[in-house]
Amino acid sequence: MDKSDVKLLFGRRVRELRKNRGWSQEEFALQVDLDRSYVGGVERGERNISLENICLIAETLQVPPAKLFERWTDSES
Amino acid sequence: MDKSDVKLLFGRRVRELRKNRGWSQEEFALQVDLDRSYVGGVERGERNISLENICLIAETLQVPPAKLFERWTDSES
Repeated sequence: MDKSDVKLLFGRRVRELRKNRGWSQEEFALQVDLDRSYVGGVERGERNISLENICLIAETLQVPPAKLFERWTDSES
Repeated sequence: MDKSDVKLLFGRRVRELRKNRGWSQEEFALQVDLDRSYVGGVERGERNISLENICLIAETLQVPPAKLFERWTDSES
């Protein structure tokens, strides 16, 4: 799995869980207290996000951090 | 869960899985192609490791990345 893939897969999963909560990207950025453009970059797979921010996002989405690394393979062909 | 906790919990889990494979820290650092002092810092919970390096470590340990975020609560009282 190459490096851009992991960022894309992670971002896709964040977006999915964020939408599951019914939050816009803007609402989510407010909840998580991160910059909206940063959150957008994470969701687009452009950010090599750190462990602390991964856990902050998980906490905000009210899921265990492991959940952000699950279902990565669903969309792979 | 505060920020130092997540680094400590993550590092503890990496150490556990690394030992499960029977690798010294030095052997693991060679396998994962990261600096030995960096790997030591991760295991001690001193490093705010990035998504790419998390996935690199998981790949080297031959576990899904989610595994690094499991069993975090075993040692919590």
